[in-house]
Amino acid sequence: MKVFTENEVMTTYHMSDAIQDIENLFQNIDEVSQTSRIVIPTGEGAKSMLYMPCIHQGKQQGIIKITSITPENPKHHRPTTQANIVITDLTTGEHVASMDGSYLTRLRTGALSGIATKYMSRPDSEVLGMIGTGGMAYEQLLGNLAVRPIKKVLLFNRTTEKAHDFKSRIADKHSNITFEVVSDVSELVKQSDIINCQTKSLTPVFNANDVKDGTHINGIGSYRPEMKEMDNELFPQATQIVFDDLEGVKEEAGEFIEADEKGLFSFDAHNDDLKGVSLKGEIQRQDKDITIFKCVGAAHFDLAVALGAWEKFNK
Amino acid sequence: MKVFTENEVMTTYHMSDAIQDIENLFQNIDEVSQTSRIVIPTGEGAKSMLYMPCIHQGKQQGIIKITSITPENPKHHRPTTQANIVITDLTTGEHVASMDGSYLTRLRTGALSGIATKYMSRPDSEVLGMIGTGGMAYEQLLGNLAVRPIKKVLLFNRTTEKAHDFKSRIADKHSNITFEVVSDVSELVKQSDIINCQTKSLTPVFNANDVKDGTHINGIGSYRPEMKEMDNELFPQATQIVFDDLEGVKEEAGEFIEADEKGLFSFDAHNDDLKGVSLKGEIQRQDKDITIFKCVGAAHFDLAVALGAWEKFNK
Repeated sequence: MKVFTENEVMTTYHMSDAIQDIENLFQNIDEVSQTSRIVIPTGEGAKSMLYMPCIHQGKQQGIIKITSITPENPKHHRPTTQANIVITDLTTGEHVASMDGSYLTRLRTGALSGIATKYMSRPDSEVLGMIGTGGMAYEQLLGNLAVRPIKKVLLFNRTTEKAHDFKSRIADKHSNITFEVVSDVSELVKQSDIINCQTKSLTPVFNANDVKDGTHINGIGSYRPEMKEMDNELFPQATQIVFDDLEGVKEEAGEFIEADEKGLFSFDAHNDDLKGVSLKGEIQRQDKDITIFKCVGAAHFDLAVALGAWEKFNK
Repeated sequence: MKVFTENEVMTTYHMSDAIQDIENLFQNIDEVSQTSRIVIPTGEGAKSMLYMPCIHQGKQQGIIKITSITPENPKHHRPTTQANIVITDLTTGEHVASMDGSYLTRLRTGALSGIATKYMSRPDSEVLGMIGTGGMAYEQLLGNLAVRPIKKVLLFNRTTEKAHDFKSRIADKHSNITFEVVSDVSELVKQSDIINCQTKSLTPVFNANDVKDGTHINGIGSYRPEMKEMDNELFPQATQIVFDDLEGVKEEAGEFIEADEKGLFSFDAHNDDLKGVSLKGEIQRQDKDITIFKCVGAAHFDLAVALGAWEKFNK
């Protein structure tokens, strides 16, 4: 068994790889088998272990992502979520690799937003507003930068200081882009062509009335029913709402569960998923349309990037 | 993450450790959480991946055993079953170790037979008959040797040549014991104080009429409903039948499923498990009693040995 640290994976496998590998997997999704996510509580509150196995029957390779959730960790300067991925070659049955899965999880989530942005946002989108500058933010930025000619990035965080920290960490790596920290989220929303939300907020992080025509929004934050990051008053105005995984959104995305209950949106009438959009290669949109992508994650996205990274390591 | 190969685990962690760690875990079994085994088919027949997660809430450590089943492998001189165990420290959320799980699986299964033999067989048992000399056999031998003053071991295998091979591989390591290959299983059964069966047989590997008074039998082979290794005509004569895991036996052990259907045995009337026997420290037996232990395995036994090995590595 070969072991790959987070740094080794980061050095070898990048956003463009992840976007390509996920879109390639969409074309062969009928060769993928997975089970529901298995959760075992390990302490109080959200403290738990998650297990997400997934098999690529065609490639005869399988993975399992093993994730620990440790809510107390930030107090001790450790990450809340830590993932490890084990890859098995199903032809020989050998467990061939153990890979740090934390970067790959952030990367595949950024890639999903990137794919959504590529097909759903206006092609001339130049201003990206990022709400939330925590652990998931950087790869969300990369996903958008990979597919649109972004010139300006507005950064908002509940604790403004953290938005400044984020900017200072990343600005040098992207010298052709203007980064601006804003303290008023309304300003960000009104100026942005694309809004990308990555928070754990229990209440909407923006006001639907501030969203201008032609905006595309990616929401990746709410992954539990009590989390309601996006203002669901916006949903009736959206011409397209696309999910990465309908079943996951139904169970986990608080703002959509509430919107369905309130009649602002209906899961029953919904059948747009990212796979369909990617396979079609476009959506019907007018310049003034508002579009929304909601992402909760699923094991086959981890499969796509883990096997992609493994293949790159073997080249 | 630290990685431990099969050889490293074998060098460090032994049968006496496994027996002790499993019996210790029985005392704290209410601190253990596990889910049903997750199975994803990966090809034809039994080809599959198995996932067995298990958490020790008290120790705040968790494991998952990831097992590939590749039925075609023996043709290519590779093992059918290959296991890997990932250990997570739940206090920090860190995935601390990846351990080859194949030896640990064989070892814990041998330890379970050892524990059963310790409490259920006659203390003066000196002749051990082993039916089946395949991949699981050596640790089954070790489990019995650890707890009884065995002087003679009779070996039977459907292909006699393989029993000779087994004897030649192990005899030197146990020079105080006489090993004898027998070609007639009846001879083995009639002479043995303890019979240990480890086959994948679909039909009984011995005849109930041959079993002498006072015999203890361990059956670890049948792990699918079509497998019926032990002659279930013997069950009505047994004064004690003990399982490692009642729910597992109900689902997997063919000879018991059939016996329950035929009325030779009743799951409904059954409540003796190895944990209860170990905690009580004895069973009521007369010298002439026939006793039976059936083992199918469960995630918490893997937990006991994986955490035990990890602790020894850290000493």
